[in-house]
Amino acid sequence: MVTFLSGGTGTPKLLDGAAAAFSPEETTVVANTGDDIELGGLFVSPDVDTLLFQGGGVLDRETWWGIDGDTHRTNAALSDIASAAGLPDGPQYLSDDKQTAGREIANWRRFSGTGEFMTIGDRDRAVHITRTSLLDQGHTLSEATERLAAAFGLTIDLLPMSDDPVASLVHTDEGMMHFQEYWVDRRGEPAVETVEFRGSSDAEPAPGVLEALEDTVVIGPSNPVTSIGPMLTLPGVADALGQATVVAVSPFLGDEAFSGPAGDLMEAVNAEPSTEGLATAYPFADAFVIDDGDDATFDRPTIQTDIRIDSPGDAARVARAVAEAIEIVD
Amino acid sequence: MVTFLSGGTGTPKLLDGAAAAFSPEETTVVANTGDDIELGGLFVSPDVDTLLFQGGGVLDRETWWGIDGDTHRTNAALSDIASAAGLPDGPQYLSDDKQTAGREIANWRRFSGTGEFMTIGDRDRAVHITRTSLLDQGHTLSEATERLAAAFGLTIDLLPMSDDPVASLVHTDEGMMHFQEYWVDRRGEPAVETVEFRGSSDAEPAPGVLEALEDTVVIGPSNPVTSIGPMLTLPGVADALGQATVVAVSPFLGDEAFSGPAGDLMEAVNAEPSTEGLATAYPFADAFVIDDGDDATFDRPTIQTDIRIDSPGDAARVARAVAEAIEIVD
Repeated sequence: MVTFLSGGTGTPKLLDGAAAAFSPEETTVVANTGDDIELGGLFVSPDVDTLLFQGGGVLDRETWWGIDGDTHRTNAALSDIASAAGLPDGPQYLSDDKQTAGREIANWRRFSGTGEFMTIGDRDRAVHITRTSLLDQGHTLSEATERLAAAFGLTIDLLPMSDDPVASLVHTDEGMMHFQEYWVDRRGEPAVETVEFRGSSDAEPAPGVLEALEDTVVIGPSNPVTSIGPMLTLPGVADALGQATVVAVSPFLGDEAFSGPAGDLMEAVNAEPSTEGLATAYPFADAFVIDDGDDATFDRPTIQTDIRIDSPGDAARVARAVAEAIEIVD
Repeated sequence: MVTFLSGGTGTPKLLDGAAAAFSPEETTVVANTGDDIELGGLFVSPDVDTLLFQGGGVLDRETWWGIDGDTHRTNAALSDIASAAGLPDGPQYLSDDKQTAGREIANWRRFSGTGEFMTIGDRDRAVHITRTSLLDQGHTLSEATERLAAAFGLTIDLLPMSDDPVASLVHTDEGMMHFQEYWVDRRGEPAVETVEFRGSSDAEPAPGVLEALEDTVVIGPSNPVTSIGPMLTLPGVADALGQATVVAVSPFLGDEAFSGPAGDLMEAVNAEPSTEGLATAYPFADAFVIDDGDDATFDRPTIQTDIRIDSPGDAARVARAVAEAIEIVD
């Protein structure tokens, strides 16, 4: 049994070839939910969705989000209507009093849907509507995810990190914004001062998460701050990782992040924005998998391979390196 | 200045040719909102939407709802997901405690979006998302409607009947159900015992509605019970109609309703399910427009013409008959 901790791109890429070393039936994936938002009343869980679509064989592998071949009729019409109605562009936060009124899980991350600043596909949207409706029917995010995972035919066991609200809020020189505004709308441009995971101290890991951390844990090449960071703030998770065998795959090729804003965010939390910063970000890691060309040195076992993942074959190579690292430290 | 009271099909059909007798710039249309529901978190206002799409020149004139040529990708995907996830078919009411928790205007008419029992098109959906988001941003339904009317380029002045919740609930031999379940999902099959407009006694007419009723009022060939009935229950509306010059167009050809469940519903409220029942339903009417072949007699002026409306030309003929009736009684 193995448990992967996953954000929305790097770790899913690794999972594309993970079966080379780990049986999907014996694999649990814990997905970040700090990036989740409520947009126009829909509860969108981007990292969970990427894993659902990947597991269901429908993921758009050009973007690593959304459904392959999806249309965007509603999203385009929202933009047309906003323009015709003179409604403003870009993310529109609901008012402060609305931020904690409604579905509790959407606290501190509620946006108006006018203009719809995230590109949501038409089939994609059906997933968000189903999830949101299941929440409104009284199910937890875990339960909704389980139903959706069954619908998409997932072989792995997919768990959201928490059924409680945890909002990844980025404090920048232009003010505080939710991670999705910072990354999707602002393309990571504002200078990051600090990152807050609002709600995390009161949140519980979702059912099954702490149990899954009793198995060997693989931290995929995801953003240590905003993809893995929210999980680490949940009560009990850091302790559980301290007990478990943990192998972390670097999300950096030298000081270049694979994808996403990992570098800037690492700096904001006072970690070295490179592979070497992983030792700080993951003090509980027992071994690392880093790139062939990386000259980082660690006081813990390190496997080097070509960690760039552009195909399932690449992913399989990295997965085998992870298995090799586990062999050494388990 | 003239004010039409409208449901979702009959009166919009009449409006298609109303310009033959009434200047669109001097026309106000008050739309029924008793049929509105919240479905998967979207606030859907079917009668308002038909008028928006008609005024914007995009209405599907085969069905008299939705946008011509719209796709239904999300709706189809919702059905696929519900089926794959083993979620039940048909309307799923949210729980009793959810019925009055959330947007106040959606009280007593909140449905889960799983499976989505109403056929919502992809562009259509963008209208619902925009409306719902404007409500969540603190705007009233009137304000949201005004923004949407501007976006669709409407010439007429379109007002929802109220900014407060009024839910058309049909009590049947199979229990109580919202009008949309009764009509869209159950195709009007359950035997109607009575119709309740929940919330109407506490609801206010929307801004501008009572003022609009100071003009000459035309009640189009809409369902007297569930299209016009909700308006009549609003405080001040019946009184205002008592003061105004009111011409009503029969929604019946003899005892056959033009469209919708008018006959069964008339019987449920103890009115004759035919043109003659209009005298009971609309005691404030000063004149009627009925079909050539209709042998109903009234104690008020009556204009007869071919009232079947299958084209803008038909609508113009009926509109001219309405103008003629107004001439007599104004």
